[in-house]
Amino acid sequence: MHVLVPFAADRPKTRLDPVLSSAERSAFASAMLCDVLEAIFAAGHEPVVLSTAPPEDPTDKLQTVLSDARTIVDDRPLTDAVNARLDEVPIAVVMSDLPLVTPTVLRRFLEVDGDVAIAPGRGGGTNALVVRDADFSVDYHGTSYLDHLRIAQGIGASVREFDSHRLSTDVDEPADLVEVLSLSDGLARAWLERAGFELDATDGRVGVRRE
Amino acid sequence: MHVLVPFAADRPKTRLDPVLSSAERSAFASAMLCDVLEAIFAAGHEPVVLSTAPPEDPTDKLQTVLSDARTIVDDRPLTDAVNARLDEVPIAVVMSDLPLVTPTVLRRFLEVDGDVAIAPGRGGGTNALVVRDADFSVDYHGTSYLDHLRIAQGIGASVREFDSHRLSTDVDEPADLVEVLSLSDGLARAWLERAGFELDATDGRVGVRRE
Repeated sequence: MHVLVPFAADRPKTRLDPVLSSAERSAFASAMLCDVLEAIFAAGHEPVVLSTAPPEDPTDKLQTVLSDARTIVDDRPLTDAVNARLDEVPIAVVMSDLPLVTPTVLRRFLEVDGDVAIAPGRGGGTNALVVRDADFSVDYHGTSYLDHLRIAQGIGASVREFDSHRLSTDVDEPADLVEVLSLSDGLARAWLERAGFELDATDGRVGVRRE
Repeated sequence: MHVLVPFAADRPKTRLDPVLSSAERSAFASAMLCDVLEAIFAAGHEPVVLSTAPPEDPTDKLQTVLSDARTIVDDRPLTDAVNARLDEVPIAVVMSDLPLVTPTVLRRFLEVDGDVAIAPGRGGGTNALVVRDADFSVDYHGTSYLDHLRIAQGIGASVREFDSHRLSTDVDEPADLVEVLSLSDGLARAWLERAGFELDATDGRVGVRRE
């Protein structure tokens, strides 16, 4: 199956600003994108990167991975850019900031039946979608999980919720780095460790600290 | 299977202090406990409430649910109270603040094989466990998910990770209420709605507001 992977190439991951510089946020976002693309390849599917701009100054690793994946540049807002590409079903949409994803989880997700399959993201979002009904459209603004249930209902499409911590975990804020250091074994985790991050449980609750 | 459900009857859910009064936190914690107990019953298993104290002034609903479940009072710290009861395997431990849990998810979890099955919680924790090796012991302090992997490895026990957003979502902080209002259809959600909470996406990111 084709799997669209939206990627905000300009100013990625601004909410990590308290702990990462702008250049670091770009590098970390690239590492997460690589993890997602490699998991899609390993699951036997075809990633299509849907990027707001050509990746600026990509790492060698990202260049290698991107050389195997199709890349489309579309600078419109996420919802419009995705909706323009939902007419050839089945198709999946998997966010690029899901570094906990594994080939096994992706394979299971992409095989779930239903006209629409949704992996909710923490905070009311939609982290991954499979669309098998060409009348479906996305709306990523706000409470998109509930909005997608309503849109599916409105066109009489069946919906399956896919319950996965790994797919629900998009990395937006410093607290999310705990998940990467606990559960990932990919490039995003390696990047964080090289940058000096480690888990910190000194006050009883788990956070991250940087050396 | 017996399913231990640890419950902190005194001063529950202190991190919800910014949005709920002390009495409200108790009532909300009771609603979440009811949701978890009912899901365990509906999954065909036997909950055993492991409470730090006899529930104070329980709601009618909680009294009804508790009348069907065994309750043990043990005021020791969580780790000690659970370890004292891990010798009769198989046994499961499921936290009481997981209001997204459904009978289907629980049934799948309790059937996962492995000497130890773990559903990681967000933030490095351990939200649910199945123990089939009586040599295993818990340590809930800090990065308990990683600690439990190490403890299992130390006794040569096989481990299975169970990947579930519903089991990974323990409700500790105001931001977690978004998950309850988005994905629960149980008593905890009904309690929040009666208390005037609703989803709020006015600034683009999803939070909760109270009328």
